[in-house]
Amino acid sequence: MERNISVEELNQIPTPKKEVEIVERKGIGHPDSVADGIAEAVSRSLSKYYLEHYGRILHHNTDQVEVVGGQSAPKYGGGLVLEPTYILLSGRATTKVGNDRVPYKSITIKAAKDYLRNNFSHLDVDADVMIDSRIGQGSVDLVEVYDTSKLEANDTSFGVGFAPLSETENIVLKTERYLNGSLKKKLPMVGYDIKVMGFRQKDTINLTVAAAFVDKYIKDADEYFNLKDQLKDLVLDNAVEETDKEVKVYINTADIRENSKSVGYLTVTGMSMENGDDGSVGRGNRVNGLITPYRAMSMEAAAGKNPVTHVGKLYNVLANKIANDIVQEEGNDIAEVLVRIVSQIGRPIDDPHVASVQVIYEGNVDHSKHKNNIRNLVNDRLAHVSDLTMQFVEGKITVF
Amino acid sequence: MERNISVEELNQIPTPKKEVEIVERKGIGHPDSVADGIAEAVSRSLSKYYLEHYGRILHHNTDQVEVVGGQSAPKYGGGLVLEPTYILLSGRATTKVGNDRVPYKSITIKAAKDYLRNNFSHLDVDADVMIDSRIGQGSVDLVEVYDTSKLEANDTSFGVGFAPLSETENIVLKTERYLNGSLKKKLPMVGYDIKVMGFRQKDTINLTVAAAFVDKYIKDADEYFNLKDQLKDLVLDNAVEETDKEVKVYINTADIRENSKSVGYLTVTGMSMENGDDGSVGRGNRVNGLITPYRAMSMEAAAGKNPVTHVGKLYNVLANKIANDIVQEEGNDIAEVLVRIVSQIGRPIDDPHVASVQVIYEGNVDHSKHKNNIRNLVNDRLAHVSDLTMQFVEGKITVF
Amino acid sequence: MERNISVEELNQIPTPKKEVEIVERKGIGHPDSVADGIAEAVSRSLSKYYLEHYGRILHHNTDQVEVVGGQSAPKYGGGLVLEPTYILLSGRATTKVGNDRVPYKSITIKAAKDYLRNNFSHLDVDADVMIDSRIGQGSVDLVEVYDTSKLEANDTSFGVGFAPLSETENIVLKTERYLNGSLKKKLPMVGYDIKVMGFRQKDTINLTVAAAFVDKYIKDADEYFNLKDQLKDLVLDNAVEETDKEVKVYINTADIRENSKSVGYLTVTGMSMENGDDGSVGRGNRVNGLITPYRAMSMEAAAGKNPVTHVGKLYNVLANKIANDIVQEEGNDIAEVLVRIVSQIGRPIDDPHVASVQVIYEGNVDHSKHKNNIRNLVNDRLAHVSDLTMQFVEGKITVF
Amino acid sequence: MERNISVEELNQIPTPKKEVEIVERKGIGHPDSVADGIAEAVSRSLSKYYLEHYGRILHHNTDQVEVVGGQSAPKYGGGLVLEPTYILLSGRATTKVGNDRVPYKSITIKAAKDYLRNNFSHLDVDADVMIDSRIGQGSVDLVEVYDTSKLEANDTSFGVGFAPLSETENIVLKTERYLNGSLKKKLPMVGYDIKVMGFRQKDTINLTVAAAFVDKYIKDADEYFNLKDQLKDLVLDNAVEETDKEVKVYINTADIRENSKSVGYLTVTGMSMENGDDGSVGRGNRVNGLITPYRAMSMEAAAGKNPVTHVGKLYNVLANKIANDIVQEEGNDIAEVLVRIVSQIGRPIDDPHVASVQVIYEGNVDHSKHKNNIRNLVNDRLAHVSDLTMQFVEGKITVF
Repeated sequence: MERNISVEELNQIPTPKKEVEIVERKGIGHPDSVADGIAEAVSRSLSKYYLEHYGRILHHNTDQVEVVGGQSAPKYGGGLVLEPTYILLSGRATTKVGNDRVPYKSITIKAAKDYLRNNFSHLDVDADVMIDSRIGQGSVDLVEVYDTSKLEANDTSFGVGFAPLSETENIVLKTERYLNGSLKKKLPMVGYDIKVMGFRQKDTINLTVAAAFVDKYIKDADEYFNLKDQLKDLVLDNAVEETDKEVKVYINTADIRENSKSVGYLTVTGMSMENGDDGSVGRGNRVNGLITPYRAMSMEAAAGKNPVTHVGKLYNVLANKIANDIVQEEGNDIAEVLVRIVSQIGRPIDDPHVASVQVIYEGNVDHSKHKNNIRNLVNDRLAHVSDLTMQFVEGKITVF
Repeated sequence: MERNISVEELNQIPTPKKEVEIVERKGIGHPDSVADGIAEAVSRSLSKYYLEHYGRILHHNTDQVEVVGGQSAPKYGGGLVLEPTYILLSGRATTKVGNDRVPYKSITIKAAKDYLRNNFSHLDVDADVMIDSRIGQGSVDLVEVYDTSKLEANDTSFGVGFAPLSETENIVLKTERYLNGSLKKKLPMVGYDIKVMGFRQKDTINLTVAAAFVDKYIKDADEYFNLKDQLKDLVLDNAVEETDKEVKVYINTADIRENSKSVGYLTVTGMSMENGDDGSVGRGNRVNGLITPYRAMSMEAAAGKNPVTHVGKLYNVLANKIANDIVQEEGNDIAEVLVRIVSQIGRPIDDPHVASVQVIYEGNVDHSKHKNNIRNLVNDRLAHVSDLTMQFVEGKITVF
Repeated sequence: MERNISVEELNQIPTPKKEVEIVERKGIGHPDSVADGIAEAVSRSLSKYYLEHYGRILHHNTDQVEVVGGQSAPKYGGGLVLEPTYILLSGRATTKVGNDRVPYKSITIKAAKDYLRNNFSHLDVDADVMIDSRIGQGSVDLVEVYDTSKLEANDTSFGVGFAPLSETENIVLKTERYLNGSLKKKLPMVGYDIKVMGFRQKDTINLTVAAAFVDKYIKDADEYFNLKDQLKDLVLDNAVEETDKEVKVYINTADIRENSKSVGYLTVTGMSMENGDDGSVGRGNRVNGLITPYRAMSMEAAAGKNPVTHVGKLYNVLANKIANDIVQEEGNDIAEVLVRIVSQIGRPIDDPHVASVQVIYEGNVDHSKHKNNIRNLVNDRLAHVSDLTMQFVEGKITVF
Repeated sequence: MERNISVEELNQIPTPKKEVEIVERKGIGHPDSVADGIAEAVSRSLSKYYLEHYGRILHHNTDQVEVVGGQSAPKYGGGLVLEPTYILLSGRATTKVGNDRVPYKSITIKAAKDYLRNNFSHLDVDADVMIDSRIGQGSVDLVEVYDTSKLEANDTSFGVGFAPLSETENIVLKTERYLNGSLKKKLPMVGYDIKVMGFRQKDTINLTVAAAFVDKYIKDADEYFNLKDQLKDLVLDNAVEETDKEVKVYINTADIRENSKSVGYLTVTGMSMENGDDGSVGRGNRVNGLITPYRAMSMEAAAGKNPVTHVGKLYNVLANKIANDIVQEEGNDIAEVLVRIVSQIGRPIDDPHVASVQVIYEGNVDHSKHKNNIRNLVNDRLAHVSDLTMQFVEGKITVF
């Protein structure tokens, strides 16, 4: 198979050397990430059911989850969830196989609840959320085209990836993972809804962190502001390990101390969806975990898409993987690489319309050697695109 | 006021000169665009109500609409909608002003129905859609921060814009507008759900068009394929006016002639949401009407956001406006300009954290002069950011 | 066929001669009646579709409608609906016939909207209600038993009827029909939500009427109380035509004149569901239009049941018809007759488990003659039970 | 206080001596009973919350629950729930007390889930049901009238009761309680959805029992029919203890042995709502646990009504209590007693519009003595009507 692979040199300044850079990450408890996480969990559960009963993953796309925020009344010492968050699952699934009917609705609402229970310890899934499912059967015509045994692209779409991450990008990613990871042992009152905005201007990195606190652990505003100071120091210590640049940290900048009503960013469950914040799939992080307006991005929502033929899922992850592999294998000569893969509906997924690689080299380099290596690497990764499928099903690839 | 404005030269190849370019536009009848259109219509209706009764636009964000596809059985000569599309409105509104209660739910479902009736002539709003609203009251704390009379940024967010559009971008935009505009007089059977994917490789522009046809106008497959050929010629004629490059047009590439079941892209209403296609706000076109993975983009959903303080709406539109104004005023010296505007929650909207402009100049230019002009222009546009508000309310600015 | 028909004499005082009698009628605009009316309209629409396309009425039971009241702010001169009423259609329908799929959801939501538009002139169906449908497919096993061509009873159930109506019953029925009929020409501000409670104690009939008024027609509390007085007189005049007993009329007894906030029973749409009053099928009037706790009643909801085999619908109407026919044919000898018809699942609908008739005779009568006549009459009516079906479909039989 | 109490002799044949009698009981797993049970559980939970936080039970009526049946595929050895049952909670609650907001939605969905978990052991509440709540705030005007501290009737309504139960009634009641009680130890495969229809014709009592079986306990059709035979014998043994009349028992009469598809009444969860059977509040048993078309009944749904002022709840229970107390205290002279209590909106609940007692005496009795005793008894029970309130809250009074 002769694949259409374009490798092009870009003669331009790599992102980290530009004057300004903006990077954002929505933590796993952000409503958009909650929607992504549920969508992907639902797809994994359906995939496992199909595999177990029919030996292959049948068509589905559950990349439509709407999180409609509830109402809460947090307060120091512990408040109340007043109205549960409403979560609507939609999308499509294979609901019938021959004469067998698939218990798709039960599988999907159970997967959603399990995901919430396993990830958000302050949430009472029985009382704080209501889950509805309007997942339906796919269009009869499209199901044929989508037939997942043919491994043809389901849509005319594309994936985008780049490598390596800049310092700012690394710090933003690392900060959220720290806050939703090991920091919880030191400061258990830090909730799951965390948003990290990195804004680098020349050699200064500004980290603006919005972090929901869990009210029951904090007795009053003094303790809250004290904890914010501790958190600021910890975030700073964690960030400076990654960079020599100056780092400035801002936590919950909307807090107004003097205003008795609105003193801090308190929540009952550690998640802002409890109180009016809505979310939906595909509006948050890209598959590399970041939102990067100074970089190329795809608009495709990967979470919840079927992991067999949906190029919006496969090609975005593959483009990032290819970019990373190129940087790793071609070594220091490469300053930055951008990868886009374009499908056309009906073409085999391992033979895209085009795979386009743009490379920014470091200084004077013999490009011809790299160009060939890159072409071979891309060719190889495309040939093995279907290896990704089971990694999605097993949860080994994150998509947001 | 001393605004933080960064103007930086980028020494790189402008987009139209790169080897590969991908551009996509989802037409107004695409489910994601339907969601965007409803969200924005709902915001306009609420804004008008608030203005009429309280003299100013009160807080709301109705940027959450979920379109859950129905089921249909199209066939040559005219088929049936089997299950209506379910449309969930969510988001937040100001529901009470002093002791007055605002009829926000009635306003919003009426706005949604009117939008559908006015834009999609083949849709029977009474039978083909079910509209539900779970729009709720904003969080009490946030409402204060969001208080729209203060004109402070509601969030830490950013807007992204660029200019000028490339030939490929122009053609993609123009193609969809043609198909959903004047072409309807010649070929009324072309529906509203149209997706145009432009993929330029060197000097060839591939236009892949997915266009739903309305079944009742077409008597059989022969007529359908005949109409596709006519459509292809018309799209090509329309496109070549904009470019000297080679243009190739593909219409409904998933059609399989020999397969009796799946012969064409037929719909009853001209919209694929009738049969299993879902959509939601913010997953389609950016505010310039395009999805451009070879360009910088914001992930912010603009449609439905409040037009007074939501920087995700204001800054994206403003960044594009600034980019266009720079290109227009600074003339031929400028090959490409990128604008990002970053807010910080609580800062006045006319004083962002940073406004960053990156410029690619044509050949040898005296940058210093331009740099100063650009800075002044940005300063001026930021000072007048609030002029956008009423243009949104009056529907003069499109956001998708 | 030898049918099991039991004719029994009851030696007891007829209802109108007992000391106390209570009779209630919920008008067509009462939320329970709105639910009944929609359920029946939906069944009629489905029946017509099935007849037109398949030559017979296929299985369905749409006797589940939940009306969840909205919120409104009525005021003299005209108020607002604040939140639309939410109406959930549920129940079962035949959704597939061979390979044909039936557009049952579209049919049903359209039927519901048409019913509301045709009956309640002050309601803006686009803005004041939201209609959702969760009507589903019947159980596969039961569908076979229910197969409407076999005309076997779908359930073990019963119907109850009696005749003649007492004076009190007649007056209650006539009062609501007057208020929702010809009175509207004189007093157009009287809404559709009317409840009439008749309570006779010996020779005094107390008529307690709750009648929603439409706010836009009434300028202030004085006019309201003036209108109430007019209404009271008109109700009294209308009632005394039917009886020599003393009649006392009470209108909107919950009104509190001195309390400025709660001065009258005002609505925007003439229907209390606009403001928090819920309703559901089968909780209001029995098929004779009345609730009669001093009489035998069935708990079966008739509205929305399929008119071919559902004994809960057929037998209740038939029992009343038989009772009326007996009174009419057997003349003055009969003071009161009660009819119950009991089905058993799987038996032909024209051969019930038992048809039981209880008769209270006037004075000294030769029962044997009547007994035989009655037996023959019951036998005949059962043999023609299926004549009712098309009368339901054509809307000639009211069920609430 | 001089209460309006009417005591009237009825000179008629008591129910057990009439030729025909029909009595029905829907078991706790019947969809209508599930709706009733949830509605009442929700009211109890709200009442407890109000008592704990505000010292008294605030206004609420949660007597609107709609159970929309799911889809299942039961089979011998164990089948699957395919689509969860959807349960909509509606009704009204006090949602705000001064500046406090009440977490009414969370309380109510939690109460519903707890009720299902505690009563139906084969149901997986996480996967087999979806619970939604549209419970809203009561109408502002009505809330004042309903103010539960005033103890005034909330409506013009009535309660109905009678005593003693006939043999047939006792047997029907006892049969369901046996099947959903101690029988489960012997035959654990008998599910919760049980309907018992008693039809007495002269001296023969026909008991028609529909009992859902749980599929996983039964290996094939032979075992099923064998179990049905065992069940029939056990039901008969249990019934004949109560009567000297002939008893005939029919179990699952819709079963068709020869038809391979529809061989038995199998379910996955023991509840027919899993497969298309809908239910709603107030369409099943009256407060005495029975549906008795040969007796007087109220149409009021008691389950979920507030236990402080809702006469539809209080008066129905009180009327039965008074009837039972009269029979108990007045001894063998009384063959049958019927009690109705009529409210008028705005009157104190202990002073109804009328309390009407109708008595059928056994043979020759000195009525005057009884009449006086009865009047005193009714007077006393009315004076203590509010003693019922806490018995409802503590779950000591069943309402269906």
